[in-house]
Amino acid sequence: MAEQKNTWAHRVEKCHFLRWIDTLLRGAAQVMFQDSAWCGLFFLLGIGWGAWEEGIPEVALGAVLGLFVGTLAAHILGAPSEDIRKGLHGYNGILVGCALPTFFGANTVCWVLVVAGSFFSTVIMLAVSRFLRTWKVSAMTGPFVFTTWFILLASYNFARFKMTGLPHPSFPIQPAEAAAVLPGIEVLARAVLKGVSQVFLIGNEVTGLLFLVGLACSSLPASIFAWCGSAVAIATAAFLGADERAVAEGLYQFSAVLTAIGLGSAFYSPNWRVILYALLGTVFTVIAQGALNVALSPLGIPTLTFPFVIAAWLFLLPNLQFMPESHRTTSPSA
Amino acid sequence: MAEQKNTWAHRVEKCHFLRWIDTLLRGAAQVMFQDSAWCGLFFLLGIGWGAWEEGIPEVALGAVLGLFVGTLAAHILGAPSEDIRKGLHGYNGILVGCALPTFFGANTVCWVLVVAGSFFSTVIMLAVSRFLRTWKVSAMTGPFVFTTWFILLASYNFARFKMTGLPHPSFPIQPAEAAAVLPGIEVLARAVLKGVSQVFLIGNEVTGLLFLVGLACSSLPASIFAWCGSAVAIATAAFLGADERAVAEGLYQFSAVLTAIGLGSAFYSPNWRVILYALLGTVFTVIAQGALNVALSPLGIPTLTFPFVIAAWLFLLPNLQFMPESHRTTSPSA
Amino acid sequence: MAEQKNTWAHRVEKCHFLRWIDTLLRGAAQVMFQDSAWCGLFFLLGIGWGAWEEGIPEVALGAVLGLFVGTLAAHILGAPSEDIRKGLHGYNGILVGCALPTFFGANTVCWVLVVAGSFFSTVIMLAVSRFLRTWKVSAMTGPFVFTTWFILLASYNFARFKMTGLPHPSFPIQPAEAAAVLPGIEVLARAVLKGVSQVFLIGNEVTGLLFLVGLACSSLPASIFAWCGSAVAIATAAFLGADERAVAEGLYQFSAVLTAIGLGSAFYSPNWRVILYALLGTVFTVIAQGALNVALSPLGIPTLTFPFVIAAWLFLLPNLQFMPESHRTTSPSA
Repeated sequence: MAEQKNTWAHRVEKCHFLRWIDTLLRGAAQVMFQDSAWCGLFFLLGIGWGAWEEGIPEVALGAVLGLFVGTLAAHILGAPSEDIRKGLHGYNGILVGCALPTFFGANTVCWVLVVAGSFFSTVIMLAVSRFLRTWKVSAMTGPFVFTTWFILLASYNFARFKMTGLPHPSFPIQPAEAAAVLPGIEVLARAVLKGVSQVFLIGNEVTGLLFLVGLACSSLPASIFAWCGSAVAIATAAFLGADERAVAEGLYQFSAVLTAIGLGSAFYSPNWRVILYALLGTVFTVIAQGALNVALSPLGIPTLTFPFVIAAWLFLLPNLQFMPESHRTTSPSA
Repeated sequence: MAEQKNTWAHRVEKCHFLRWIDTLLRGAAQVMFQDSAWCGLFFLLGIGWGAWEEGIPEVALGAVLGLFVGTLAAHILGAPSEDIRKGLHGYNGILVGCALPTFFGANTVCWVLVVAGSFFSTVIMLAVSRFLRTWKVSAMTGPFVFTTWFILLASYNFARFKMTGLPHPSFPIQPAEAAAVLPGIEVLARAVLKGVSQVFLIGNEVTGLLFLVGLACSSLPASIFAWCGSAVAIATAAFLGADERAVAEGLYQFSAVLTAIGLGSAFYSPNWRVILYALLGTVFTVIAQGALNVALSPLGIPTLTFPFVIAAWLFLLPNLQFMPESHRTTSPSA
Repeated sequence: MAEQKNTWAHRVEKCHFLRWIDTLLRGAAQVMFQDSAWCGLFFLLGIGWGAWEEGIPEVALGAVLGLFVGTLAAHILGAPSEDIRKGLHGYNGILVGCALPTFFGANTVCWVLVVAGSFFSTVIMLAVSRFLRTWKVSAMTGPFVFTTWFILLASYNFARFKMTGLPHPSFPIQPAEAAAVLPGIEVLARAVLKGVSQVFLIGNEVTGLLFLVGLACSSLPASIFAWCGSAVAIATAAFLGADERAVAEGLYQFSAVLTAIGLGSAFYSPNWRVILYALLGTVFTVIAQGALNVALSPLGIPTLTFPFVIAAWLFLLPNLQFMPESHRTTSPSA
């Protein structure tokens, strides 16, 4: 890995264009806290495959557009260049670019909103990062969530937004008794992978697999935590009685995947105490997913990755020290 | 009081078990800002009496369980031991333990949630405390409220939660004209005491009386402010035209009781200016109670003590100095 | 201007009563970030004219009462006198005083609430200002919004509030296809001026003109940004397909007006980069207006100026430096 990176690093330093490509790939990878172009490449492959398979090519297009505009915005606004170089101003844009064409028909207004939204997401990234710097906590995917919520909410208010994928606003109603029959191993294995792929709003097993491979290129523990986070989320959701179809689609897992990677391997180095803390955080994320599903149901918008964001902020703010000072990793996202 | 405490303090220092008991009792007392085992004992007696009288013994069991798990969690997570010793990591857990069996049928999922929720409440306590330390403001009962809201909201989303005591989600509707007839003295006296008892989600006059006695053991002004806070809340609610039955049950008073004790005697030493400020805060709390009743009605969850939390934060953040520096008390909760 | 001010300044320093008047006028002007008694005088004239024309004289009375009580509260609570002198504790009160009689029938409870609300708005101003001082960001009209939201929400809960101007709580519904016909120049010109006047909750062209004149007395760029902000908001709202009648009444413009003045001339000195940033912020404010219209529709309360508040906080928090340190203006509101 180190040698591969050196050759690439050489070429990248020489060529302005390649440096941009490298930065954009890292931006994709930062959605799951990785500062690695290889990881980002697999993520983009996964998005491309999933978008093609599910018949939503505009999601792949939106992803690339959002990634580019978000990063460009950081240059224009004068963000610190070392942050830009790590991809920290691309990961919110790529998610905005995946989300908007998922919920809107791909008309002109939609593409204008992808561009504007990715730009806004970088402004909000700078705002949230400065706010949270006081406690040395990262913005997580908060800027993506806030930007996209604003635009999704606004769609109910403006006639030119073509709404296609939003739930109907309604009062929360408890589902009937949960099914007692356990699903088979294959269904579970698919649900775990779809849980990983849903981080980018795509429900596709191969995409999930490509994401895990990409993570492993950058950090094997990250890949393992991602898989385990999805599995733990399925177990928790099943114990509490979640809707089976939603679990099969990965909708209770994607935020938990991010919490597991974040607490388990990104903001702390893994050891036994950290693993238990990440487990606790992952369980909390599933409850938060349920709570936010309900809290947002009268507004007719999805939670996006906010269950992860709130879990990460609450579990990182205590600033617990699980190991001697010298062994700690510093947080990968500013 | 001081001598009693000395003998007790002696025994407590010698015996690990007694120190735990003493810590737990202080945890109960910290719900109303008291660092006193005697006060906590009366609180537990009050909860026990109320739970027995009202036919809800699981609330008393939940209280003890939540108190224990919350405090244990602080040990496990490595919270500062002087904070734990003052009971600052028990008061959110005891409230979570009172609340969940009040709103849920006491099945297995409920008890698992009491344990998990009390644990989460300590994580959130550490998070909120670190966040607010920047302004030297305490977490109040915020961690209890956030934890319980998450779990109550999630109950609409998962089939295995047995909902028994939650209101139906609905749009807010203004009540018809308020009754012009004033209730009698006895009804008012009961309403004042029930307002105090509702701090622990119990509507029982004797419980309210035991709480006032407990407060008086620790601080006579605290006890007086509690009683007066409840009375002021009744007057304010009646002036604004609140539902009589809700007032008779203490539902407009419990947050106001906490605001009155907090502003009047816990975070400031009482003098005339402080009394007027506490009065203002108490009136604000009743308006906030009405506002939050409405804001939460589409979600079908109760306000819990959030009207107090928001009032305390807003009225303490200005950091007003009502007396010379040397005379001020330091805040009792971290 | 400078000489005028000197004579006035002389008299003002000699006479306690005139100093109060001068402070109150500055309080009115601070709603649009101006520290100028002349500007405030035109604002009060505009409010008076609009209230008279629209047949709502109680709004003018409420404005003066709220302005006075908010400023008085700051004296009583011991706020820094240089802040009071600049009008920083009057601008939230005047808005509370405009808002409550707009939404409530002018009965006794309403006037009590204007007095109490203006007082609370100063407490909340001190709280929010201290909170935000950490990042050197101003409270904006946040204290007005929070105070008024609390009171408006509470009105659904208490029988003695006489609700007259609040929308019905309902689920958000997307409007039908937007009209393709462009309105004429006159209609647009009126809509721009009404957008300015709606900052004080009044829909009247002459009032808008008086506000622009008042702004020009204090700062010509502020006046230009106000007009342009309203125009940009109309264009944005029309592009997105907003309800024509709401645009004609100025309801998509008033927050954008504040964002444009704030980002363009108050917190930054105007240059090309600042103008583009203010334009971006203004467009964002219109989307936020739509989003908040939707988010608040189940609660039946209006957004007030919160779209501006959230835009200003998000766009000022990044603390972007558009010019050399020595040329920057310091923020006018604490």
